[in-house]
Amino acid sequence: MCLIGFGSSGQELCRILLERKERITSLTGNKVEVVAVATKSRGNLVDHSGLDLKELLKLAESKSGFHDHPSLVRIDTVDLIKESGADVLIELSTLSIKDGQPALTHIETALDQGMQIITANKGPIAWGYKRLKEKADQKGLQLLFESTVLDGTPVFNLVKRALLDCRVEGFRGILNSTTNYILGKMESGLPYEGALQHAKDQDFVEADSDLDTKGWDAAAKTAVLINVLMDGNVTPMDIDREGIDGLTLDQVQAALKANKRYKLVCEGYRKDNGIYGRVSPQVLDVAELFCAVNASSSVICLQTEMMGEICIVENNPEIRQTAYGVYSDLLHLLNS
Amino acid sequence: MCLIGFGSSGQELCRILLERKERITSLTGNKVEVVAVATKSRGNLVDHSGLDLKELLKLAESKSGFHDHPSLVRIDTVDLIKESGADVLIELSTLSIKDGQPALTHIETALDQGMQIITANKGPIAWGYKRLKEKADQKGLQLLFESTVLDGTPVFNLVKRALLDCRVEGFRGILNSTTNYILGKMESGLPYEGALQHAKDQDFVEADSDLDTKGWDAAAKTAVLINVLMDGNVTPMDIDREGIDGLTLDQVQAALKANKRYKLVCEGYRKDNGIYGRVSPQVLDVAELFCAVNASSSVICLQTEMMGEICIVENNPEIRQTAYGVYSDLLHLLNS
Repeated sequence: MCLIGFGSSGQELCRILLERKERITSLTGNKVEVVAVATKSRGNLVDHSGLDLKELLKLAESKSGFHDHPSLVRIDTVDLIKESGADVLIELSTLSIKDGQPALTHIETALDQGMQIITANKGPIAWGYKRLKEKADQKGLQLLFESTVLDGTPVFNLVKRALLDCRVEGFRGILNSTTNYILGKMESGLPYEGALQHAKDQDFVEADSDLDTKGWDAAAKTAVLINVLMDGNVTPMDIDREGIDGLTLDQVQAALKANKRYKLVCEGYRKDNGIYGRVSPQVLDVAELFCAVNASSSVICLQTEMMGEICIVENNPEIRQTAYGVYSDLLHLLNS
Repeated sequence: MCLIGFGSSGQELCRILLERKERITSLTGNKVEVVAVATKSRGNLVDHSGLDLKELLKLAESKSGFHDHPSLVRIDTVDLIKESGADVLIELSTLSIKDGQPALTHIETALDQGMQIITANKGPIAWGYKRLKEKADQKGLQLLFESTVLDGTPVFNLVKRALLDCRVEGFRGILNSTTNYILGKMESGLPYEGALQHAKDQDFVEADSDLDTKGWDAAAKTAVLINVLMDGNVTPMDIDREGIDGLTLDQVQAALKANKRYKLVCEGYRKDNGIYGRVSPQVLDVAELFCAVNASSSVICLQTEMMGEICIVENNPEIRQTAYGVYSDLLHLLNS
């Protein structure tokens, strides 16, 4: 496979692949080799006989990255995908919220090469799901993306593989853990800026913090859910979006005194033959389920045709949970 | 298929089969006919060319039941299963908590006949899962039981089909909706007996109310989860069980004043190479997730090897949710 992105989730995936090498073979009958890796600043590698993941993990901690590696290639990521000869693309590059690029191009290139796709990057699914899905279907290829929402918690696999013949009518969720964490800190008395800094210190915040605080990440996830589960065709720009950056400590504290709490709520709903998405801070009664979902936990409630409302909660995930989602997609792919 | 039990869930299943007749064929390529029905007091029917479900639903409302039906047979349920010639047994008979009978015998008989099994009756899975599973596996038959815990909410399908290669280490849940409802009524000021009566008026309580209030239903579900998800081999008798019948209004109200709530919690856990189950009333902080699961809602939190803790909540289910679980099992069966 060809791995795009070698940050924390890419590295954790490689750790899982090393730990579960025999399991993968016994479960699927396949052997997995990483034949190409593209990174943002560490350099790009290709080795058709398979890269040594242990070595890559060690090098990732060094200053020079892969620049002294014998498999270093001086080609860009699109060419790397073409020349990798891989059967599977794993897209874990950094999210660009404005257009889903360059991940969208990576995936289209890989589909043109006949590669199966697994992405934890929500950009392409938020921006181009319909187009990518059509292309994949035409070529008989799979497009899997469990980790784009609630990390590896089964959301898409839950609906696709367990909720057969049960339409999703709408959803409601807390999908951005950073803002959930910040709101919690404001409830414990920190003003907005201090709470944001606290989240940054925990490494919870995107490099561009607007992605979290202005609701862009939440809007992208809302778009993904609408596109995939509700058969919609929207982009993050179509989502009615309000972040938490306008909230003051006074507001949050006043809500608490009234036994209420602010949560950044994502919604997808049908109205007058249309499908709409909204991200907004909402004041909820403390007794509500969403108020029991705190710190970096997330929740999604699906309103379904046959099963009423079902909610799934992910409790304080770590990087393994994101990597597991990619790993579980890989097992589904190898099993099919 | 051969349907054992024609109470509310059996009737609702038939409604779904009527509504979704074309869907089933388009999704699975199969046509479903009910060729035999066994009931507790309405009589038993066999018609190898398929029974008219609309007619059965109408007759179920009448006093005479099926006793004037031309397909009425004077044989017991075990013989009915043998003579039905059906490919699939749907076991929806009334739960016997003491031994899982007669459902256990129904399922064994059907497996001997080479029939696939779907059961919403938790007795057989709580009492004889290992034995039944072995027999089914030997014969290449499926044994499906999604509706035994949390109605049709995917629990077993979630783990089996979406959480690949991710061991369940333990679980914690509110699995009996009747006691959850009763505790809520006690919090709003009703003494235990009045709260129980209120639940009875809503038709939430088993014919033998001890099954709910003494924790037997919860223990049976705990045994099912341990047997299936944790590869255990226990019966409801092995579960350390305490019901809510010993709780007083004073205790419940005192907890509320201290910002705490009583919940009947089911647990499965590993300790010293053993697997244990417990059902007990626990005093939880109101901020905990379980305290946001009220009325007839249920929740299960799975502690997993790769995904940390994942919880799934079913919000105030109705009879359709139980029937949907059977229907989704049927679709899985027909697709495989």
